[in-house]
Amino acid sequence: MINCSKKRLEDKIKTFSNFGDTGNGGITRLCFTEPNLQARAEFCRRCETLNMKIKTDDMGNIYVTKEGKENLPAIAAGSHLDSVVKGGNYDGVLGVLTALEAVETIITEKIETRHPITVVVWTNEEGSRFRPAMMSSGVIADKFDQDAMLNVKDEEGVTFEEALKASGYRGDAVNRFSPEHYSAFLELHVEQGPVLEAEDKDIGVVEGVLGMVNYEIKTRGQANHAGTTPMFMRKDALYAMVAIIQYLHDELGKLDPALVYTTGEFSGGPNVHTVIPDNVRITLDARHRDPEVIEQVVKVIKSLPAEIRGCSVSYREQWARNTIDFKTEMISAVEESVKALGYTYKLMYSGAGHDAQYIADMVPASMVFVPSDTGFSHCEEEHTSLEHCWKGANVILQTMLTLDKKEA
Amino acid sequence: MINCSKKRLEDKIKTFSNFGDTGNGGITRLCFTEPNLQARAEFCRRCETLNMKIKTDDMGNIYVTKEGKENLPAIAAGSHLDSVVKGGNYDGVLGVLTALEAVETIITEKIETRHPITVVVWTNEEGSRFRPAMMSSGVIADKFDQDAMLNVKDEEGVTFEEALKASGYRGDAVNRFSPEHYSAFLELHVEQGPVLEAEDKDIGVVEGVLGMVNYEIKTRGQANHAGTTPMFMRKDALYAMVAIIQYLHDELGKLDPALVYTTGEFSGGPNVHTVIPDNVRITLDARHRDPEVIEQVVKVIKSLPAEIRGCSVSYREQWARNTIDFKTEMISAVEESVKALGYTYKLMYSGAGHDAQYIADMVPASMVFVPSDTGFSHCEEEHTSLEHCWKGANVILQTMLTLDKKEA
Repeated sequence: MINCSKKRLEDKIKTFSNFGDTGNGGITRLCFTEPNLQARAEFCRRCETLNMKIKTDDMGNIYVTKEGKENLPAIAAGSHLDSVVKGGNYDGVLGVLTALEAVETIITEKIETRHPITVVVWTNEEGSRFRPAMMSSGVIADKFDQDAMLNVKDEEGVTFEEALKASGYRGDAVNRFSPEHYSAFLELHVEQGPVLEAEDKDIGVVEGVLGMVNYEIKTRGQANHAGTTPMFMRKDALYAMVAIIQYLHDELGKLDPALVYTTGEFSGGPNVHTVIPDNVRITLDARHRDPEVIEQVVKVIKSLPAEIRGCSVSYREQWARNTIDFKTEMISAVEESVKALGYTYKLMYSGAGHDAQYIADMVPASMVFVPSDTGFSHCEEEHTSLEHCWKGANVILQTMLTLDKKEA
Repeated sequence: MINCSKKRLEDKIKTFSNFGDTGNGGITRLCFTEPNLQARAEFCRRCETLNMKIKTDDMGNIYVTKEGKENLPAIAAGSHLDSVVKGGNYDGVLGVLTALEAVETIITEKIETRHPITVVVWTNEEGSRFRPAMMSSGVIADKFDQDAMLNVKDEEGVTFEEALKASGYRGDAVNRFSPEHYSAFLELHVEQGPVLEAEDKDIGVVEGVLGMVNYEIKTRGQANHAGTTPMFMRKDALYAMVAIIQYLHDELGKLDPALVYTTGEFSGGPNVHTVIPDNVRITLDARHRDPEVIEQVVKVIKSLPAEIRGCSVSYREQWARNTIDFKTEMISAVEESVKALGYTYKLMYSGAGHDAQYIADMVPASMVFVPSDTGFSHCEEEHTSLEHCWKGANVILQTMLTLDKKEA
């Protein structure tokens, strides 16, 4: 069995780690900033060296293609080259580099494919400069209104459209990813969680992306002086929120053990040491594969008391998404490749969102996870061993070849 | 019995409400800003009209004096003319205006006093522009180092000394309040709490200022992705803090019912809806008259577990102050006046800090509280009825006259 080159992959990872290097082991490479443009340019330069054909679409997504023998739609793989502020060297970029390494192996090993093979770079996946996340795959898959997205402004007031134009990567809408020209999409990504490492698995074969709900929950009490207000006369919004968070953990803890729920944002006021808090706000993010469990979560939220510890309680859904189940044929293709390579693996759902979930609406798609050391992601400590990156690249390569053999 | 003029007092309150008027029923009158200087100028103008003698000291404190018949130290009363941002029309200024109204009554009614009577305006009591609070009474009473205070900067980098010089109120250190020249200090203030209103009392006769401790408490966990980290592998610093706050309420709730404790400040990070919080910080402010109860509070804090819900817990004392007990003779003088006037009253401790607590180190001092509607203070809704303000002024007047009759 032909494998990717570990050495070449190491060079790719190291090279791309320079673009936006924070000096602390991580990178900051926001969409269409100089470090992001450097990474895009290096990607294109390497593809040109391989004589691949480069196209961009009207959202700045890049498609580089190695031609196939037959007149068939392309098999695509890829991810993104942008990062969060002080992000790591693996989230996104590893999906691009393993796809590129797989195609480079096909080219250098002179493996003939029936289908064209395309590496895709999705624009602005993180949404750190221009909200929302997965903006460009979302536009292509008709999840977001393009005009609205073009008008999204960064913190300095620059619109996405202005940044896109200035980048030089604005192409034609006819180049967009479409079911007409593509037959499959594969995305390798770091797990961003601790499960593969904890269970000592090389590969996560991703079956889909968890459905989720996100609620905002607020308590409102009465600000008063810390020294002069007797305890029994208080309406302390923070103490009320303590009861709410405890209640949520107690009740949600009774549901399916695979449910994850997080109170990630928390703020309020007046936030003065001598004043009783009068308002506190938290977010509750809950994710599970089964929509019935998500419904149970919503029931728990709706069972919150209207008043607790003298304070009023309110909640409101901010957003929700349904579970995305990848097509069985694609999951099987990845699983077969992993088995053929002799790697340990786990079938799992992604708790995080990825471009592949939107692309899955258009063509059969799936994902390959590699372990994240200690589960860290979106931080400079983010790390995946070269061995695991290389194994991931081999899974992408084998799956491309498996898919290439199948009759359309 | 001669009383103050309700009409004159109303005019004073209305006039001073214009300086720094926010247009929403409150004022913003930070130390040595234009509105504060307008209030100081109007105060001095009114004192000049009454032929009182004006002095200022090296912290910008103002002393205006009506001479007495005998060569005795002065009886002083007053408070402050600065406010917090979006404060009310009573905190501080009412203590100055009732003292002025009492002296104006003495002058216009041609009551002869043995002692000189002085109205004092303390500089920068709130500490909202220049930290800390009660800065200038604190310097006079040797609680703060003067050089350090002069170098305190506001948010724009202006030092207290620069603002003091520019104000025109910088006087001579020989004019400072001292036991040599003053025999007593009285401060009327709004209660800033709901107790007098709830118990339907006209006046609070203040016996002292509660001792307090202020602790910072932190939890530290591990930030991880909300969608990919199983519940049992989490170290959620917010969920840990929920347990800590509940523990504090449970344990402190067992102590003396007069104890007040507040978790007023709360913050942490990363504060992103998709990330498990890794650090949370709160402050705990606890106040009680009895140092043994404060010791019990500290014991509870020291009994906090070093680790809870997978997170480390740490705490640190930020500051503490001992209970200040006003002298019995002064409390009695106020109480006698209130009784003579036939007002309802309550003996109580102040939960908030006031200039009088520092001045009490130098001469016998006491305070008079008037009810705060709904207990609101440090906000635009702060309100005390004219009737209660007027009753407070009468208590100040009667106490001045009672003290004046006493043999030194």
